[in-house]
Amino acid sequence: MKLVSFRVGGKSSYGVVTDGGVIDAGRRLGAAFPDLKSALAGGLEKLRALAGAAPDHALEAVELLPVIPNPDKIFCIGVNYMTHLKETGRPTPTHPMIFVRFADSLVGHGRPMLRPPESIQYDFEGELAVVMGSGGRRIPRERALEHVAGYACINEGTLRDWQRHTAQFLPGKSFEQSGAFGPWMVTADEIADPSTLTLTTRLNGEVMQHAEVSDLIFDVPALIAYISTFTTLRPGDVISTGTTGGVGAYREPPVWMKAGDTAEVEISGIGTLRNPIVDEGG
Amino acid sequence: MKLVSFRVGGKSSYGVVTDGGVIDAGRRLGAAFPDLKSALAGGLEKLRALAGAAPDHALEAVELLPVIPNPDKIFCIGVNYMTHLKETGRPTPTHPMIFVRFADSLVGHGRPMLRPPESIQYDFEGELAVVMGSGGRRIPRERALEHVAGYACINEGTLRDWQRHTAQFLPGKSFEQSGAFGPWMVTADEIADPSTLTLTTRLNGEVMQHAEVSDLIFDVPALIAYISTFTTLRPGDVISTGTTGGVGAYREPPVWMKAGDTAEVEISGIGTLRNPIVDEGG
Repeated sequence: MKLVSFRVGGKSSYGVVTDGGVIDAGRRLGAAFPDLKSALAGGLEKLRALAGAAPDHALEAVELLPVIPNPDKIFCIGVNYMTHLKETGRPTPTHPMIFVRFADSLVGHGRPMLRPPESIQYDFEGELAVVMGSGGRRIPRERALEHVAGYACINEGTLRDWQRHTAQFLPGKSFEQSGAFGPWMVTADEIADPSTLTLTTRLNGEVMQHAEVSDLIFDVPALIAYISTFTTLRPGDVISTGTTGGVGAYREPPVWMKAGDTAEVEISGIGTLRNPIVDEGG
Repeated sequence: MKLVSFRVGGKSSYGVVTDGGVIDAGRRLGAAFPDLKSALAGGLEKLRALAGAAPDHALEAVELLPVIPNPDKIFCIGVNYMTHLKETGRPTPTHPMIFVRFADSLVGHGRPMLRPPESIQYDFEGELAVVMGSGGRRIPRERALEHVAGYACINEGTLRDWQRHTAQFLPGKSFEQSGAFGPWMVTADEIADPSTLTLTTRLNGEVMQHAEVSDLIFDVPALIAYISTFTTLRPGDVISTGTTGGVGAYREPPVWMKAGDTAEVEISGIGTLRNPIVDEGG
């Protein structure tokens, strides 16, 4: 099942994507569950029960929002693929590197990713995103996947010079509308083992990053166990599992995204997140 | 004017602290402004208009919550006092070091700050917190103080080993209920220039940190200008301006907070934030 958040006719909603279009779940369940985050908290059964309904909207007729537009917490993982680790020259870590993005730093599929006037060092990072279904604290590794609602693509757009102003990454990772999250989430029942997935990032059609998710240094269960040690995970929380080798900053010469470019993150079994790059205010 | 968020009779509210007790603003304005964050967004005039009302609760009868229990964003600043910079041995920075805490990592005045079972390296960090009144993006330094609603104390309780698992500070800064934010905020009209304030941190009555806020490397206007370059500040957002020299980790031998201790952060013109240290689950 593919779940989306979207806007249509000036109203925000969420629903199920089918071959025939989008079934508007917000219209049917909105009184009890105003958004996808609350629907995930209530369990997927009521969304599954809608799966046979007639679609309400053509997919092209809705504006896709970030899969979860309003997560409580968005965790990002630094240098978590062996290939990316090698390109950065860092030693193999003993703990996952965790930082955050703000929700307003992400746009939905098809929406412009904005390069701000403060930097030209605008880089792509294709990543597998995990969306939590049931929350918890100190979730053991062996139970971790039971807490996952589904998976999506994230382009963790980064302003490299602002990331490196100090040792803390936040400023370069949280420019508004500098990243993307979509196009939808595929529920976990269709992806029994996320380590079997394959990730590809393209810039203007050219493959820039390609990785097996099995190459993750800290896999999805390890990340859930570690993060939930210090904080409670809640339904709709997002863990972006890190990017792989091939980012623009480490190319010779560096490759930066600029107005007119198209960035794509494709994950097998999920789909392709595609966004045009636009200059902010341009 | 002193503004608080609190719970009484199982219900969350907010209000104005006076010598005679707490005027319950939530009871009077709650339909339009359900919490202090929304009341700040609506402007302070309606809170000022209540200032002559008879208090509804004795201060001792309410459970104080974090001043803003539900901010959109909480920014923390690393090594921002010259004295603390010297003790860490880091070079003078060219940009402020920004990371975040989660709202659920903070408790109100008087509530236990929790030491988790995963670490004994539980350190204090007394800090001046800025609460935003009106938001904005790319706020110029010279207009920045106009956007401040008020000031409060934060104890940025830190699990040092978890802070140092990787280069990114988040895990050691976001253990649940490991920090404190209170006791109230004093509105900015009473603090024309925050650099005139004095900050003192005590552990079990002994002074551990003492600083003039004028010793900040990046002052309050500089922090607002920098942060609002990459993200929109919103009413109720919090900027904890960084801690000064004297933290437990750099003492010989190190001083860690433990069950039975009492931590205090006092700022002139604001008041004293006091919390007992308790072992989580203990």
